[in-house]
Amino acid sequence: MTRPPADRADSLRRSEIRVLFDAAARLGDDVIRLEVGEPSFTTPVHVIEAAAKAARDGHTGYGPNGGLLSLRELLAEKLRRVNGIEASTDEIVVTPGAMNALYSVYLALLSAGDEVLLPTPGFPNMDETIRLLGGAPVFYPLSADAGFLPDVGALEALVTERTRILFVNTPANPTGAVYPAPLMGDLVEFAARHDIWLLCDEVYDEMVLSPGCVHTAAAPFDTDGRVITVCSFSKVYAMTGWRVGYAAAPRPVADLLRKLQEPLVSCPSTISQKAAEAALTGPRAPYDEMLAAYRNRRSAALDAAAAAGVGAVASDGTLYMLLDVSAAGVDDLEFALGLLESQSVSVAPGSVFGPGGRGWARISLAAEESAITEGVRRLAKALHA
Amino acid sequence: MTRPPADRADSLRRSEIRVLFDAAARLGDDVIRLEVGEPSFTTPVHVIEAAAKAARDGHTGYGPNGGLLSLRELLAEKLRRVNGIEASTDEIVVTPGAMNALYSVYLALLSAGDEVLLPTPGFPNMDETIRLLGGAPVFYPLSADAGFLPDVGALEALVTERTRILFVNTPANPTGAVYPAPLMGDLVEFAARHDIWLLCDEVYDEMVLSPGCVHTAAAPFDTDGRVITVCSFSKVYAMTGWRVGYAAAPRPVADLLRKLQEPLVSCPSTISQKAAEAALTGPRAPYDEMLAAYRNRRSAALDAAAAAGVGAVASDGTLYMLLDVSAAGVDDLEFALGLLESQSVSVAPGSVFGPGGRGWARISLAAEESAITEGVRRLAKALHA
Repeated sequence: MTRPPADRADSLRRSEIRVLFDAAARLGDDVIRLEVGEPSFTTPVHVIEAAAKAARDGHTGYGPNGGLLSLRELLAEKLRRVNGIEASTDEIVVTPGAMNALYSVYLALLSAGDEVLLPTPGFPNMDETIRLLGGAPVFYPLSADAGFLPDVGALEALVTERTRILFVNTPANPTGAVYPAPLMGDLVEFAARHDIWLLCDEVYDEMVLSPGCVHTAAAPFDTDGRVITVCSFSKVYAMTGWRVGYAAAPRPVADLLRKLQEPLVSCPSTISQKAAEAALTGPRAPYDEMLAAYRNRRSAALDAAAAAGVGAVASDGTLYMLLDVSAAGVDDLEFALGLLESQSVSVAPGSVFGPGGRGWARISLAAEESAITEGVRRLAKALHA
Repeated sequence: MTRPPADRADSLRRSEIRVLFDAAARLGDDVIRLEVGEPSFTTPVHVIEAAAKAARDGHTGYGPNGGLLSLRELLAEKLRRVNGIEASTDEIVVTPGAMNALYSVYLALLSAGDEVLLPTPGFPNMDETIRLLGGAPVFYPLSADAGFLPDVGALEALVTERTRILFVNTPANPTGAVYPAPLMGDLVEFAARHDIWLLCDEVYDEMVLSPGCVHTAAAPFDTDGRVITVCSFSKVYAMTGWRVGYAAAPRPVADLLRKLQEPLVSCPSTISQKAAEAALTGPRAPYDEMLAAYRNRRSAALDAAAAAGVGAVASDGTLYMLLDVSAAGVDDLEFALGLLESQSVSVAPGSVFGPGGRGWARISLAAEESAITEGVRRLAKALHA
């Protein structure tokens, strides 16, 4: 390379999940893949056919920066129904995937040196993204003893003059925690007290697995326009490959996100947006079936872990579950690599999710039930070896 | 807004083209739309059906950050055939549109204060993108007298310690210039002499309109890994709504671009990538027909301009043509707004393309031939009023 690249890009480390993923892929079909962060279902056929029809009907050109109005109208209805959020079509911005929505929010709101409060264990791309934009991630730990729920007192101790955003994720990856309503109110109140933004990642909003548990959004507690909500079609609607996410934000922020779409990506795929419309308006049965499968797999995983003597966190939502591998004698990354090698089972090592993930392994409920139970059995074997 | 957003986002101005576009849209069907930067053709049906089939066959999940290997193999062949570029599949990175490829390149290579040499008149998103990332755009003027080709001597005078990238666009928007081979060699040699990157935007590479004219890429002149090429499916294959672009870059840069896809967008749409594969492997007839139409419209536009006494730049490539409106007595933005109001014709005012665009109006060959000739006739009326 003739000239060194900018520091911010060069310092970006590749997600360890992808490293493990690549290793598992090289080992071939015999590996039980429990590290995957993607639904085991393909997109329902009515969604595919609707997208093809829209393309045949001429919907193959650019759309508006912030997404098609027809989709945003449907999203306003969905946000009301699922998240309890009242957002006008001008307060909704469609993006090519939730990751792009999150990146755009940080680009819009962070200046160099600004701090973002991030949960750990938590989604690993967040701290990388913040660093890439010159911001500083500050981790707030989530402990198993507290059900992996944030502690507002602990958050208070982390606030500085440079704190700009509190990032919250519910239902939470990788813990599976679904934050209760009173906590959501407390978190918004905390953000208001310190005059910071609250960015709520709700990409698993319709994936609640525990009976009686309900998802609670942050925005309904917002009294002065400081909460930004990010959702996605990827996980809930088995549409990871189409790349459709969206943000609901106070109008001034939504206007900024819309403007930023032009230099970042121009606009989301028109065809994918038409697919997303069909996902919202078409039959619910395919999604109900997926959810039922995830719930069954969750129960099977908990049973298998109990039978094998492995500590497991009863996941209330998402499609993940944490297993306790702290007794392995080696760190969780080394344990995961060893498990892949000795037992042909791939899991996501907990420390991928930040310092709070040490001693844990994340398994995915996207695998078939038999693969999950066999995988847990083999993990126990490696753990107790 | 409770807290001001980051300066970089707040200072972003909305593209004046979009402002005019919105005004034209409000006025409805009676407006002759010559400002549009999008093909008048919808995506050929074989491409749509191939995408639908791929989705039905289960290609609805995440792909690799840098694009599907099957697409990159086809792109290596296309780059060899069309651009004369030898690039391995690891040196090709697929992105959701060329705009995202360009943004990623700047994110990878620019540090705060770094300067980028940009042509004017030129694509307006470039300077905004560079400013958004803390860089400084430095314009190099393209003059009508020199056929809107860069002058290397003039470039020399603009180089400073902070110059990092020379941005080049051929075939060029909005001038329609297609840079000759010796000039491309000189530009690469200039970049090497000053040890800077050369970023070559070739999104109109297969849209050469003048008989005997050929597109010449920059990368074949590269001797030491400093040229990055960005191409797109949007214009050439009438696929703007699918969002598929790509970069060909020296391996270290390609590796960076691939890594940056994760925090920026995760990956491009898998369905759109399958559509792109079909565009490369399917029948060429639809694209030949499009190109023939653009060539006919170019001739018609030149004839109409000559008949009406309007100066026109004979466009060698792209789907645009510049008309001289310097005699209007008002600046080009005001002229364009007046033209829309008095004659119901929308054009892109030249100053949208930077200071070098003053006194020009860009018309698009995406409109039907009759609309183009009538639009030019009315423009002449407004100009000579």
